[in-house]
Amino acid sequence: MATGVKIATIGGGSSYTPELMEGFIKRYAELPIREIWLVDIEAGKEKLEIVGAMAQRMWDASPYDVKVYMALDREEALKDADFVTTQFRVGLLEARIKDERIPAYYGMLGQETNGAGGMFKAFRTVPIILEIVEDMKRLCPDAWLINFANPSGMVTEAVVRYGKWDKVIGLCNVPVMATMVEPEMLGKSADELIYKFAGLNHFHWHKVADDHGKDITMEIVEKMYAGETGLPKNIHDIPFPRRLLEQMQMIPCGYHRYYYMEEEMLEHALEEYQTIGTRAQQVKKTEAELFELYKDPNLDHKPEQLGQHGGAYYSDAACESIASIYANKDTQLVVSTKNNGAVPDLPADCVVEVSAYIGGQGARNVAFGELPTAERGWLQVMKAMELLTIEAAVTGDYDTALQAFTINPMVRSGKTAQRMMDELFIAHKAHLPNFKTTIDRLEKEGIEVQDEVARELDLVNV
Amino acid sequence: MATGVKIATIGGGSSYTPELMEGFIKRYAELPIREIWLVDIEAGKEKLEIVGAMAQRMWDASPYDVKVYMALDREEALKDADFVTTQFRVGLLEARIKDERIPAYYGMLGQETNGAGGMFKAFRTVPIILEIVEDMKRLCPDAWLINFANPSGMVTEAVVRYGKWDKVIGLCNVPVMATMVEPEMLGKSADELIYKFAGLNHFHWHKVADDHGKDITMEIVEKMYAGETGLPKNIHDIPFPRRLLEQMQMIPCGYHRYYYMEEEMLEHALEEYQTIGTRAQQVKKTEAELFELYKDPNLDHKPEQLGQHGGAYYSDAACESIASIYANKDTQLVVSTKNNGAVPDLPADCVVEVSAYIGGQGARNVAFGELPTAERGWLQVMKAMELLTIEAAVTGDYDTALQAFTINPMVRSGKTAQRMMDELFIAHKAHLPNFKTTIDRLEKEGIEVQDEVARELDLVNV
Amino acid sequence: MATGVKIATIGGGSSYTPELMEGFIKRYAELPIREIWLVDIEAGKEKLEIVGAMAQRMWDASPYDVKVYMALDREEALKDADFVTTQFRVGLLEARIKDERIPAYYGMLGQETNGAGGMFKAFRTVPIILEIVEDMKRLCPDAWLINFANPSGMVTEAVVRYGKWDKVIGLCNVPVMATMVEPEMLGKSADELIYKFAGLNHFHWHKVADDHGKDITMEIVEKMYAGETGLPKNIHDIPFPRRLLEQMQMIPCGYHRYYYMEEEMLEHALEEYQTIGTRAQQVKKTEAELFELYKDPNLDHKPEQLGQHGGAYYSDAACESIASIYANKDTQLVVSTKNNGAVPDLPADCVVEVSAYIGGQGARNVAFGELPTAERGWLQVMKAMELLTIEAAVTGDYDTALQAFTINPMVRSGKTAQRMMDELFIAHKAHLPNFKTTIDRLEKEGIEVQDEVARELDLVNV
Amino acid sequence: MATGVKIATIGGGSSYTPELMEGFIKRYAELPIREIWLVDIEAGKEKLEIVGAMAQRMWDASPYDVKVYMALDREEALKDADFVTTQFRVGLLEARIKDERIPAYYGMLGQETNGAGGMFKAFRTVPIILEIVEDMKRLCPDAWLINFANPSGMVTEAVVRYGKWDKVIGLCNVPVMATMVEPEMLGKSADELIYKFAGLNHFHWHKVADDHGKDITMEIVEKMYAGETGLPKNIHDIPFPRRLLEQMQMIPCGYHRYYYMEEEMLEHALEEYQTIGTRAQQVKKTEAELFELYKDPNLDHKPEQLGQHGGAYYSDAACESIASIYANKDTQLVVSTKNNGAVPDLPADCVVEVSAYIGGQGARNVAFGELPTAERGWLQVMKAMELLTIEAAVTGDYDTALQAFTINPMVRSGKTAQRMMDELFIAHKAHLPNFKTTIDRLEKEGIEVQDEVARELDLVNV
Repeated sequence: MATGVKIATIGGGSSYTPELMEGFIKRYAELPIREIWLVDIEAGKEKLEIVGAMAQRMWDASPYDVKVYMALDREEALKDADFVTTQFRVGLLEARIKDERIPAYYGMLGQETNGAGGMFKAFRTVPIILEIVEDMKRLCPDAWLINFANPSGMVTEAVVRYGKWDKVIGLCNVPVMATMVEPEMLGKSADELIYKFAGLNHFHWHKVADDHGKDITMEIVEKMYAGETGLPKNIHDIPFPRRLLEQMQMIPCGYHRYYYMEEEMLEHALEEYQTIGTRAQQVKKTEAELFELYKDPNLDHKPEQLGQHGGAYYSDAACESIASIYANKDTQLVVSTKNNGAVPDLPADCVVEVSAYIGGQGARNVAFGELPTAERGWLQVMKAMELLTIEAAVTGDYDTALQAFTINPMVRSGKTAQRMMDELFIAHKAHLPNFKTTIDRLEKEGIEVQDEVARELDLVNV
Repeated sequence: MATGVKIATIGGGSSYTPELMEGFIKRYAELPIREIWLVDIEAGKEKLEIVGAMAQRMWDASPYDVKVYMALDREEALKDADFVTTQFRVGLLEARIKDERIPAYYGMLGQETNGAGGMFKAFRTVPIILEIVEDMKRLCPDAWLINFANPSGMVTEAVVRYGKWDKVIGLCNVPVMATMVEPEMLGKSADELIYKFAGLNHFHWHKVADDHGKDITMEIVEKMYAGETGLPKNIHDIPFPRRLLEQMQMIPCGYHRYYYMEEEMLEHALEEYQTIGTRAQQVKKTEAELFELYKDPNLDHKPEQLGQHGGAYYSDAACESIASIYANKDTQLVVSTKNNGAVPDLPADCVVEVSAYIGGQGARNVAFGELPTAERGWLQVMKAMELLTIEAAVTGDYDTALQAFTINPMVRSGKTAQRMMDELFIAHKAHLPNFKTTIDRLEKEGIEVQDEVARELDLVNV
Repeated sequence: MATGVKIATIGGGSSYTPELMEGFIKRYAELPIREIWLVDIEAGKEKLEIVGAMAQRMWDASPYDVKVYMALDREEALKDADFVTTQFRVGLLEARIKDERIPAYYGMLGQETNGAGGMFKAFRTVPIILEIVEDMKRLCPDAWLINFANPSGMVTEAVVRYGKWDKVIGLCNVPVMATMVEPEMLGKSADELIYKFAGLNHFHWHKVADDHGKDITMEIVEKMYAGETGLPKNIHDIPFPRRLLEQMQMIPCGYHRYYYMEEEMLEHALEEYQTIGTRAQQVKKTEAELFELYKDPNLDHKPEQLGQHGGAYYSDAACESIASIYANKDTQLVVSTKNNGAVPDLPADCVVEVSAYIGGQGARNVAFGELPTAERGWLQVMKAMELLTIEAAVTGDYDTALQAFTINPMVRSGKTAQRMMDELFIAHKAHLPNFKTTIDRLEKEGIEVQDEVARELDLVNV
Repeated sequence: MATGVKIATIGGGSSYTPELMEGFIKRYAELPIREIWLVDIEAGKEKLEIVGAMAQRMWDASPYDVKVYMALDREEALKDADFVTTQFRVGLLEARIKDERIPAYYGMLGQETNGAGGMFKAFRTVPIILEIVEDMKRLCPDAWLINFANPSGMVTEAVVRYGKWDKVIGLCNVPVMATMVEPEMLGKSADELIYKFAGLNHFHWHKVADDHGKDITMEIVEKMYAGETGLPKNIHDIPFPRRLLEQMQMIPCGYHRYYYMEEEMLEHALEEYQTIGTRAQQVKKTEAELFELYKDPNLDHKPEQLGQHGGAYYSDAACESIASIYANKDTQLVVSTKNNGAVPDLPADCVVEVSAYIGGQGARNVAFGELPTAERGWLQVMKAMELLTIEAAVTGDYDTALQAFTINPMVRSGKTAQRMMDELFIAHKAHLPNFKTTIDRLEKEGIEVQDEVARELDLVNV
């Protein structure tokens, strides 16, 4: 066996790849990488080449001898890989633009992770991740899958439940940012605080104690109302109703704004929709700028602008997970992983997002104990929504998709919601082969995308 | 001990009382009543007297010698009662008008059972039912409590959980009507069908089989789309998305429209709000007409018009429950009762609404088995909403109330919802002593009811 | 389709068949039988012919025109059957003699239902019942399976879990006898009492109330200590420690003696072993006498002696179940059936024995609610034992069998238990094809049955 | 506030105290102790003085200035303590001798932790620990309770459930020894292995992986059959049936011998009973020798002989727990702690023994996931036995005690077991004030201890 670690990164042409490289370079001492394979699809070839060259420059500027390969053929990249990271976006940012604009056209929230948009993202992503898992079973059966393709929790659940693959860790930058910003607020270092997270991806709560075990969650809440919040850039930053946090004695995650303050988040989303464009449209601009930077043959380190991006620190969490598994480091992270009882209000065999120690066997989840009534209820309906969404993605069943939309608290049920869903099916036709029958029917019924921007993208059908 | 059964009816001045009398008269052979005590509050005295006289006339016209007493003093009525029925409305229909109009003013659903309105109905009703239970412990410790005060499920849960009183059955006319209308649709009699209901009050599903055990749920669904629905009059009658029912293979209850078709139900409610007035305003008119009829000293039987009322058949279910307990008849009914495992997706000690055989020990629930993913998720969040609402009603904690509103799928969370909630607190001030601190604070903050109709009622504060 | 009901009885040569006929004759008005097929194996042909002739004589003496067929070919009998009853004994009474004597040789309890003997009975019976279920899927897919082959609970669990066949009801005469004898003790009729049973086959408890709902369990306990007990004849009749019953406030079933008074039951079993022979040996004698009676061409009704038999009333319960399903009668019975939450301390998808209403859809279980600590713990370990036993029966895995023996509270773990188990494998070789590898190994290791009576039977290996 | 940590040790006169001192001395850098209070009762005064002087000599021989106080008054010792350790034995070794000999007289296992003896140990210990907790609430409400008084799991459960005190960690040396010996077997260091334990105190299983995450449990099993086992000295060392371990793919704890090989363990216990005396009698000798050593005014370090003792490493685990909490070290240990879902087969609010990371908030349990069928069943019945035992200890209810005995798999139910239980009540009269009514009754009935050795001890009634 060759010495050194082989990494395969699916969706390697992503603008986040330089952050990933930086994370690996920083950890080389404990994670001696031999080669990195950046995989992308034909449509992403140009970006892949830009970012691949940039990645190689970063390694060349480091003291380490690591080779970066670019591949359009997934199989070659997966062969004997030790770790596979997934950060691909089926349909690219264009798909996300549709996910956001089509609901907004109807005055509804698209929300690209747990909302209508996120559900379609799951419909597109789940079948691909399951193909990757099948490839891994053949080509690198001992490898770990480190997923940060969104919706990260649902994708991880699909890997475990339908892929029957347990060596997977799902990541998210939301808890990473909380555990970075909160200690700062208190003038402390991260290891002086004790964290306990529980819930689902983009739907979790956490508690914090100091190193003497004293609960200081409400001290942090105090600071949050005084100023800085530590939100990723893609969440509109408005304060939670303070009384709710006092009732909970926990800190909800940033995405919880869509549930605790649906009205305000919708208002904001519609305002952007009507003016500067939805979040995806903004991100697209940032991304284009990043790729311009990456083209510079002198640039050999991660540019500062990347840190402003919504997905910042995802890659760092990925690198840390990989290093922790490889070196059995027992680092604490918050990950999507098989529950095993850590959140006793959900079945032991489903995927949750919790505090865990990451080592040679993957995640060792910290048992959180039962949640209070309100959080328990919401968690249970959200997990049901996730399970139905994944089931629909796998079976291509329209009615199951409709049920998932109906119970999602972020979707107001009724004829408009169904119309919006139908248009999303049409818009994403190219990436939803499992739903072919449904889409054929909808086309026959004459369903057409109403939002012009989305419709034009639809013509390209990226 | 005196022979014959003593019934005490709290809220005896209700327009439904004649239906109750008719039910008792019909069942006299198996339920030999000695006396009936109709109890009401001072403010309801006039109605009580009209309806009490009418009730006595009904008995006098029957072959049975039963005395109807009218009482403003609850204690006298409860003393040694065998059965206590509760059908009171704290704040009368005026309170319901507020429950509906204040949300509607803000473009939201009030929905007087599970929506914002229903939650405030629970805030008003739970403390009173708990007082009644305490009285029963002293005055008639062997009696059964048959509740049809709404929100019937939450009230029953409060009786069991906080009142620690297990001899209670909660009733609803929704399943009664389903089991009356559906056999008709098929040209069958009720005992040729096998029913299985599970869920919560106004939030349950059912399955139907023929007497050979063959599932015929979808045959009934077929008929429903062809015409008649069997809805109580207070639910706006529009068809469910058929695909959802096909996915479920179960029949949701009429109130599920508020969840499966929130948009349409809201549209309808707002239209009524802006035109003929909300449902409560309409009911008020019907009720006034009924009382005019009741005044007729020649009227000695239930007038037909009562059967058109939204709450029709409630009383019949109550009479049947009482007769079944008294005569250990083992009649099948759908009731709110301690779960005991019948709905395994909810804790064994909470209250659910399920098919049960009613006999000398009360309800023997039919174990339904696990529900499918979507129904399970929704049921769990709804039960959490119920538990929080009841907890808030008991503790008077504003923040708990806010959580209950926030997780209720029928309330769009955010600043408007909170404003609406605050106005409801102000509007119901006279009936929410547990929330005194909150209401004082809100008044100090200058919160005022914006809907004019509700505000004027508020001045009276019935 | 032919009119009238077709019944197929597997194990039709049983001495209990006349009781079954009597039950059907009694219920002909509601269960119009056309033909009855008694099926048995070649080795049971003689008995089948005796009992078959007797059965036909019984019908001929009745006012009804019913034809009794005898068949060695199961397929013909199952073809288009409406109800299949199973009362077969793999290996006949000889096998039970081994089940009892081999443990007794080592000073241990064989106990033919839940003990070491019962586990081997399950090993022999489960594969056959699963074959029957497969036949039913082909030949009579709408039929109901009414099982009273022992161990009845485990056999029913196997049908549901491995056979994936839900139209099954498992029966036992123990609760039948309780609900017959207890009302008598109190001078009441059965329908004046309200029963609630929960647990597993031969491992359940019950509570009793009068028709006013008053719990009178302890009144019955009082009577039990004063005299009559209502035990089936095959359970040695010694009183439970009274304090235990007072702690429980429930009545354990007769077989619970093996758990609550293991010592006394073992003493009794060993005494019989050393003197008059084990229970099976006694039963064999009774059975031979019965068959002598049946040969009498003038006997055309169930002889009284059959009522003294340990399994009396099994058949009556079977007839009542069939009639209740057929006529959708909603009769109350205690049956083995899929839990569905009725016993919330066990998984919703396993088989339990509970009070149920039997109708066109089979059993509608009465939700019992959570059991007290002691009963819950025992129930959970017993269900684990059952599941392991069934798993071993299906897979033929020796180690799983060993685990099942180890956790069974009726088996003292250790080398002697394992030796006893090994001898049982040898003794039942002819009926354990799934365990061929194991038995070959044990034979190679020279394991031989030590008990002489059992060894001689072994030579025949019925 | 004074600087430095105050430790209070209840049962300070124990022969294990020098090990505790050694543990503290070794960890002084991270756990700067100011003073240690050794508390004991009047009857233990002599031992306390010997061991207290020895403890002070140990500190004096160290570089650290720590004062050891001896106290018969618990309150003074608890006042402002930072950590309270409990290692007391109610009734001293004499009580354990009775726990072992009285069952042995009747041919039964006493087993001083989970068997009949352990249950009586719980009856004696639980009321005292609850008194200590009440004292702590007054005198040192911020302190942590580190319990290693046996039965450690039940005592910890009592603290959480009845004492309502969550700042507690229960310890046991069994997992400590496993995690010491097993790496040695493989020629590895402890941090090269990944451990996962789950179950109850003296009733748990574990799995082991190497630092690449590969499961190597069966490699260790292999080594165990080849030789060394790592058992504490108080468990008779005979190999488990290998097939069982292969079926489990887990390693049971040493005490599991009493369940998997009850016969062999009983044989061994009875042999010792009839020859060299029970384990407690042997321990008593060892202990006397230790105290002789401790008297030597020149001895200022832990003598080697102490390491041979059955309870070795308990104290080390205690010191490590305390240091980990104090310095928020996140050390991995196996502890008794509130479940919180880590063992999803048991309620989230009961105490389990699991792998955990110990830090400023106490134990962060590693979620183990569901156990296989056999282990699940046994665990559930054992937890029921524990809960009943604790309940009986608190309420003094004889019938509850009888139920606990009846369901304990290590007790053969029946008249002899009850007789044995009755004698144990008589024998421990002085330490069972909660059971006064029961003991008075038994004395009136003339119950007398039959084992002579126990009876003579009884006269003293230590």
